[in-house]
Amino acid sequence: MDPTADISPWKKKKDRKKEREVKRDAVLRVAAQLFNEKGFHATSLDEVAVRLHVTKPTVYYYVKNKEEILFECVRIGIETLHAAVEKVGNSGGTALEKLKAAIREYAAISAQDFGMCVIRVGEDPLPPESRKKLRRLKRLIDQEFRSLIVQGIAEGSIGPCDPKITAFLLAGALSWIARWYRPDGQLSLEEIVERGIAVMLNGLAARPS
Amino acid sequence: MDPTADISPWKKKKDRKKEREVKRDAVLRVAAQLFNEKGFHATSLDEVAVRLHVTKPTVYYYVKNKEEILFECVRIGIETLHAAVEKVGNSGGTALEKLKAAIREYAAISAQDFGMCVIRVGEDPLPPESRKKLRRLKRLIDQEFRSLIVQGIAEGSIGPCDPKITAFLLAGALSWIARWYRPDGQLSLEEIVERGIAVMLNGLAARPS
Repeated sequence: MDPTADISPWKKKKDRKKEREVKRDAVLRVAAQLFNEKGFHATSLDEVAVRLHVTKPTVYYYVKNKEEILFECVRIGIETLHAAVEKVGNSGGTALEKLKAAIREYAAISAQDFGMCVIRVGEDPLPPESRKKLRRLKRLIDQEFRSLIVQGIAEGSIGPCDPKITAFLLAGALSWIARWYRPDGQLSLEEIVERGIAVMLNGLAARPS
Repeated sequence: MDPTADISPWKKKKDRKKEREVKRDAVLRVAAQLFNEKGFHATSLDEVAVRLHVTKPTVYYYVKNKEEILFECVRIGIETLHAAVEKVGNSGGTALEKLKAAIREYAAISAQDFGMCVIRVGEDPLPPESRKKLRRLKRLIDQEFRSLIVQGIAEGSIGPCDPKITAFLLAGALSWIARWYRPDGQLSLEEIVERGIAVMLNGLAARPS
């Protein structure tokens, strides 16, 4: 027998840490699903525990309270959205092409648990200090969109418009997906997004053919 | 002295009814303002009473509870939005012109107390039965927008698009105004709306000049 083999029945520290992270993530994810379905106030940590087949004290081993959970869900959602939009912003192509790619990424993430939680629940139920922190993070996403619009106007791929208002309208239009998308609907998420992109890019007024 | 003159110090029944309506409306309106500022759960009827310089029992003389207030605020908001959009739909002009007018009306109402309450607070905090009723009313607004889009595509003033998805995106984009508009901002509501309409109509992609 290899004398250096690890025969300890206890997990190594780094494995324990990893396991803790996986379990904490599961708590947050299940909570995000419940918040998205029922709203923050109507969700109890008992329900989170039931869905995870554990007791409530086990849930409390990973998080302090419901507010910490919501803060984390929204933070992860915003950071995922921001990272995706930022990555697209640094890729190649015209600003209009990048904007299209950013819309696709944003829509896909906002149909997932944490991204959806940003839009369906958001920071409103949290105390002022937490709201402020999350709004600061949200502004980073807005800035990415705004900067793509400014670039596009400068290079001529995007028509003349007010970048600030356009970025807000775009965020509003995109939030629709997280609010109303149902995985069992007639259209796939990709079909909805492509039809939405067509309208946002072409506009409502008929273009001369 | 005119023998038919009313010298009773008591108000007539119809005047009493009118006065009650005015007061009930004030209760709802102040509550809507507080819900819009702080959220439904963070607002107490004590605060409503304080803002109206009355006692809480006086508030309860006009409404049953906080849920009834929110239901009424959202119902009035939706009905005001629907009536305005429907009226525009029945006016003259191309469907694209009507859609522009409908967007202007919708935006103006969603910057007011009850209209804003539809978007910032909405039916989510209410019990299932009330949520259902209000969602049914909301669908009427969506149908007006959708029908204008269908008309516009048929007559050629609106470019080919998916009317259902376009109506949802439009509602999402418009909801931005109620969420973020501040009366003390740099631009007036009218300026914001006109810049927003320009983007929604022209689209993001540069049009050949």
